Amino acid sequence: MDIKEYFSETRAEVDAHLDRLLPAEGEAPSIIHRAMRHSVFAGGKRVRPVLVLASGESVHGDRDCLLHLGAAIEMMHTYSLIHDDLPALDNDDLRRGLPTCHKVFGEAIAILAGDALMTRCYQLLAELPGVGDGSRVRIVRELAYATGTVDGMIGGQVADLESEGKPFDAETLEYIHHSKTGALLRACVRSGALAAGAADRELEALDRYGGAIGLVFQIVDDILDVTATSQALGKTAGKDVKAGKATYPALYGIEASRRKARELVEAALEEIRGFDEGADALRALARYFLQRTA
Amino acid sequence: MDIKEYFSETRAEVDAHLDRLLPAEGEAPSIIHRAMRHSVFAGGKRVRPVLVLASGESVHGDRDCLLHLGAAIEMMHTYSLIHDDLPALDNDDLRRGLPTCHKVFGEAIAILAGDALMTRCYQLLAELPGVGDGSRVRIVRELAYATGTVDGMIGGQVADLESEGKPFDAETLEYIHHSKTGALLRACVRSGALAAGAADRELEALDRYGGAIGLVFQIVDDILDVTATSQALGKTAGKDVKAGKATYPALYGIEASRRKARELVEAALEEIRGFDEGADALRALARYFLQRTA
Repeated sequence: MDIKEYFSETRAEVDAHLDRLLPAEGEAPSIIHRAMRHSVFAGGKRVRPVLVLASGESVHGDRDCLLHLGAAIEMMHTYSLIHDDLPALDNDDLRRGLPTCHKVFGEAIAILAGDALMTRCYQLLAELPGVGDGSRVRIVRELAYATGTVDGMIGGQVADLESEGKPFDAETLEYIHHSKTGALLRACVRSGALAAGAADRELEALDRYGGAIGLVFQIVDDILDVTATSQALGKTAGKDVKAGKATYPALYGIEASRRKARELVEAALEEIRGFDEGADALRALARYFLQRTA
Repeated sequence: MDIKEYFSETRAEVDAHLDRLLPAEGEAPSIIHRAMRHSVFAGGKRVRPVLVLASGESVHGDRDCLLHLGAAIEMMHTYSLIHDDLPALDNDDLRRGLPTCHKVFGEAIAILAGDALMTRCYQLLAELPGVGDGSRVRIVRELAYATGTVDGMIGGQVADLESEGKPFDAETLEYIHHSKTGALLRACVRSGALAAGAADRELEALDRYGGAIGLVFQIVDDILDVTATSQALGKTAGKDVKAGKATYPALYGIEASRRKARELVEAALEEIRGFDEGADALRALARYFLQRTA
């Protein structure tokens, strides 16, 4: 399994789905659709759709259904990036080297473009092809909990804002990591499995896999903020440290953070040890999450 | 049917559901839950839940299910108010006489509180009690389309922003009214009917009723902006005129606008003429929408 090839193949297919599932630029009112597309097609790695695909394919799900789901979740992710970048939040002018949504379209349209991408995501979840209404409802719930205020993405974002420049403890760090990034990554794994019709025992194993690699992703993000260059990251390096944010390296140091990430990857691989070769992408992804440099 | 009594009874029940269905203020991270509750309990008339109830009860739906649905839709409405009030959009300091969300909690939390209320709404739609997954999925889709960028609330908001201070025509006015407020009001009627298990013919009649009274609501809003005092409205009167917004009175004059509203109410009542006494609240509501002074 060449994970880079898997990424680039999947990314091309996900982008084709995104293009098809978003309103055209010319559709009125045009400015909002241009703003949505600007941010969705600003060069993301499509980590979340790849995770949806790999999880669903580990239990032999239908690739087209999973691509639709992955594209919808990428819209959810993009909404969160647009709102995070706003002046009132992280105030970022650049994202992946391109001007952020509000720099190009203004704050009002950026706020509405974020709202619109979340809205479109839920519409697409409710229209997920190839599955029954029961699965659709479960997946809507998965995503709503994973992105909500209680142990979800918005809660993590709030806790992150509140933690800036204050002393923080292991519990706060755990909450932020678990909620801000981890919950959505885990929901990618869970919803991919649900869309693929995973059995309960498979879903439970994948759930634990997802929890572990969600945390790995965030720990490695924290480490890269300290060790990588801005150019390699496509965003400003050292920002978390400067903002006094609650991060793994800040609390435990770089070496212990690396060790923790390695242990979590081992645990994730162990969870899916009994899966057949359909899970090879998931195995390769766990290792990739540990070794990524951007 | 005393519509004022129906409003005050329903409002009390809706508020009890909202209180139960929103995270407690003490739930971490507390600030976001306080912000959500601040705006949800800032004294709204609960027009949308009342419409959900009246529509569902016109086909003898279960009141508890409809209250849950109405509360969820009120969260959707409140998200749109919080984001509309932001400095980058309408820049309103007061809403119903109380400081707006961003004035109390700051812009970052207000943006996230809006996001969180939309998220919570979808979660609650996917958990609607007393109906099957098929109805839940249809209702999620109804709401996503009604609040989206194509003929939905966000599209109307964008067109409204774009129209400010520019000459506008009947087509633009129609689009804004149809999308910005009308689509969600119509979705209240439609989703109430779907939750209540309405037959196709009933749903079609209610759909036309909802389209008509959604437009009445917006025309009367436009008229009140010209004729009412700020005190009576609980918001700044004359704002639309001052901003050069596309409104009915601006295009057709006050008298023709009033006549149009009266005709639409007659048409709405005609649609539900064959319904039994379960539709009395819906009949009284149509007349109330015409006569309201705030």
